[in-house]
Order: sequence, then C-alpha cells, then structure tokens
Amino acid sequence: MRRLSLNQRTTASWSVPEAVDGCVRAGVEAIGLWREPVAEHGLRRTAKLVRDAGLRVSSLCRGGFLTAPGALGDNRRAIDEAAALGTDCLVMVVGGLPPGSKDLAGARTAVADAIAELAPCAGERGVRLALEPMHPVYCADRGVLSTLEQALDLAERFPVSQVGVVVDTFHLWWDPQVWQQIARAGARIASYQVSDWITPLPADVLLGRGMMGDGHIDFAAFTAAVNAAGYTGDIEVEIFNADVWNTPPDQVLTTVKDRYRRLIHTPRESNAQTP
Amino acid sequence: MRRLSLNQRTTASWSVPEAVDGCVRAGVEAIGLWREPVAEHGLRRTAKLVRDAGLRVSSLCRGGFLTAPGALGDNRRAIDEAAALGTDCLVMVVGGLPPGSKDLAGARTAVADAIAELAPCAGERGVRLALEPMHPVYCADRGVLSTLEQALDLAERFPVSQVGVVVDTFHLWWDPQVWQQIARAGARIASYQVSDWITPLPADVLLGRGMMGDGHIDFAAFTAAVNAAGYTGDIEVEIFNADVWNTPPDQVLTTVKDRYRRLIHTPRESNAQTP
Repeated sequence: MRRLSLNQRTTASWSVPEAVDGCVRAGVEAIGLWREPVAEHGLRRTAKLVRDAGLRVSSLCRGGFLTAPGALGDNRRAIDEAAALGTDCLVMVVGGLPPGSKDLAGARTAVADAIAELAPCAGERGVRLALEPMHPVYCADRGVLSTLEQALDLAERFPVSQVGVVVDTFHLWWDPQVWQQIARAGARIASYQVSDWITPLPADVLLGRGMMGDGHIDFAAFTAAVNAAGYTGDIEVEIFNADVWNTPPDQVLTTVKDRYRRLIHTPRESNAQTP
Repeated sequence: MRRLSLNQRTTASWSVPEAVDGCVRAGVEAIGLWREPVAEHGLRRTAKLVRDAGLRVSSLCRGGFLTAPGALGDNRRAIDEAAALGTDCLVMVVGGLPPGSKDLAGARTAVADAIAELAPCAGERGVRLALEPMHPVYCADRGVLSTLEQALDLAERFPVSQVGVVVDTFHLWWDPQVWQQIARAGARIASYQVSDWITPLPADVLLGRGMMGDGHIDFAAFTAAVNAAGYTGDIEVEIFNADVWNTPPDQVLTTVKDRYRRLIHTPRESNAQTP
C-alpha cells in the first residue's frame, strides 16, 4: 500500500482537509492535489496540513493549457505552488487547439515553445513539468500531445530534472507502442496514474474514467512495465466518474484500496501480494 | 466533383434506391454501400440498380468484427457481396476486445490471423480488404487497429492487391505520425473517407462525426497527402450524426457538395477550384 496515492479528484466532494483526513484514516500515504481546492483552502495552510499529516504530495494537477493567452504567467504560478506544496511533479495538460484553429501542428509547436520557456523556471524550483499525453479523444480541446512517444520526443529536448512524462493508463492503454515507449521513458516517468477505460463511454467524455477493474485495461501489464522502466514513485488513482462521485468518499477509498491490492500492486512489487 | 462519393450512411433515412436516385439527381458519380440496406433491397437488384444508374460503388461497408465467433464465414459472404456489387473495396472494422477480455495484444493477433485467412479469398474475387484504423475511442468495442502505422504493419504482410487501408480523417486526424504514414501507405490506400471531428462530442460517441468544416480537421492537408501518396480514387463522405440524419437528405447532399468543393477538393487536384 505504500505507493498508493489518492488523487483528490477521485473523491471530488471532499475539501482539502477532508481528503487529507480521509487518506490518514485509510492509511493512504500520498495525495495528488488540484490547484483550485488548494487555492480555496489556502496554499500555505494546505502545505502545512499535508506536512503535519505526514502525507507525500505525489503531484499537483495541473499546469498547462499552453495554447491559451496568459498561459506562461499562470504556469509560473503553478510551478511556485508545486514547490510550496513540496511536490516535484506538476502535471501538464498541455491544451488543445486555439478557438477556431485547425492548425494542429502549429498548436503542437506552440506547446513545445511554451515548455522551453517554463522548463528552466521549473528546474530552478525543484519541480518537474510532467507532460501528460492524453487520449486522442481530447486532442481538439484539452491536449494535443496524444502519445507517449510524442511526449517523450518533446521531453527529451530538456534535462530529465526539468521535464518528465505522465503514464496514465486511461490515456495510453490503446497505444500499440506503449510498452516500448514506457521502456524508453525510464527516468522520465514523473507520475503513474491509474483508472480504467469503460464502455459504453458516458455522455460526458470527461467523466469516462472507471474504477480499476470495471473496464478493459490490463493493469498488471502497466505496473510491470512502469516498474521495469525503473519507476519507484507513487501510483496515483485518478477517477473522474459521476457514479464514483455519488458514492460516499470513504467507501470509494475502501474500493480503491481493494482494487489497488488486487489489480495494481502486482507480484513484481511484492511477492507477499497475489491478485 | 468526379471523385466525390456518398457513403449511404450519411443519408441514413434513404433506402438503396432512394440513395441511388439522390446521387444521380445531385450529379454524384459514386456511392459507398452498407451490407444491411443492400440485403434489404437484394444483392443482385442493388448491383443492377447502381450499374444501370451509372454509379461506381466506392466501397462496401463493412466486413470485420474478426474477434467475434463466426467471423470468417460472415466475412467470406461480405467478400462475395463486394464482388457482386462491382467494388474492389471491402471496408474492415476489425472488431474490439472479446467480451470480458483485457488481452488487447491477443485481440490484435486474432485480427491478424483472421486477415491471413481471408486475404487470399478476397484476392481471388478481385476484392481488397481495406483495414480501417479507428480512433482510439473505439479500441475496446469496435476496432483494435488504432493507428495507420499499425494497419500498414499488418497490411504489408500481404500482397497489395489483397489488403489495403482506409484513410479516414475522423479516425486519424490527431495522429502525430499520420503524414508520414500516409506517404508510406502509397498504393495501399484503398479508400479515403472524410468527416469532421466536432466538439463537444455528442453523448453517443458513434454519432460524433461532423460535416466537413464544422469541426477541427484540416482537410486540405489530408487531401494533399493522400493525393501525393498516389491515391486517385473516390473521396467518400461518411457522416454519422443525429443532426445530419434529421435534415432532409437532398439538403444534406447539397451541403456535402458545397463543403467538398470548398474544403476537400483542393487546388492540388484542379487549379480551377479555390477554397
């Protein structure tokens, strides 16, 4: 259980203090935070709260939307927030096409240019920009980085301490190149996030993530690949799903822990656990 | 206008004779047929109808679903139907994961094995199996071939006369490798299908295709790439969309022709046309 992290959007109805308490109660040692609830509770207060509770902050979600006006300033603030919260991982949802644009190549170049601006600034503060390749269903409106290969092609232009990648099962499970690219990623892996791909996809595709085990993803293969690439960091459960959000959060955490034990925490990590 | 083909699902409310009449009325010279409406009207009657109307059959949709029981027999019938209709292009939606399976690699192998069984049989009848790489949003339930690269890796195991690929803008527009893979495809391109990627995606993701120009895709770039690869065949408009289906089909065809002229039929084909 020591690598399990709760991304706070999985228990979206909880405030920051409630989520911190929930993790402590459940014996979860790490939490992935989001900027909006952190701002609501206060950045310094949140930093103190998680530190006092003995939790690691596995990531801050999220920087990015680099194709929008004002992105650089906002991302510099996000880097500062990550540093203040004591996490070295700022998840970057890089952004989609600008309104009305059909210039996908141009948007990808704009993302690369913005990362080049931000990377040194992140490195100075001990924060890594964790580029998140997103499922192609989000290419137009959320993330023009669509494959791990593409994210690595960009990340490798920068020092490994400045720019890494997110391996998120939901976004990457379909990719014929994924195992090869996870092996290539090695020390670039800044975050490993898990949720399942369920069908039929709900009406709101943003809420399409399922609890691990409810869908089509072979998590044992992912965890094995990520471990073999040398990643030893937290495994963050991030589920956007109306049914999960309508379930009492403590119960969600109980299910998360159960599924984590059975599906994610493979024998390759510990022979004491069997699925 | 000579390369424009109406995929009959774009005007889903029309029967086969209505669609054939509609094409003739609109001056559209080719039609993409679907097996179910063809069966309803009768295979021989349909073949005679389109021949007498002077239409080309640009494709038959669809074979595939190769991971399901009984797939080989059904696909042999589809090959025979394509031959009877006088088209050399059978579009293959290869199928998703078998129920309950999380073995994506296994499903992909099963698809390859089935294609190996069917390819010679298609070749003998003058029909090409046109492998359709599908948007990853359909990977679990409709098509485990997710990129053009992957489809070409499979197609290239067989003679070019037996197995080709479909270049469908809706499925491929997000792919960072798409231009390079279209160039690689060359004579493997068996069909070029167009529709747009619209956001927000409708509640039913199967009906997510938009009229060209209503979404995010740069069609001029696609047509130029496909032409540069040497493809001179039909350009098939295939739109699954509730709003399009609720519009009188003649009006849909008028819009299709207008958008085709302005967006698809690029100057590279004819300098007489400018967008």
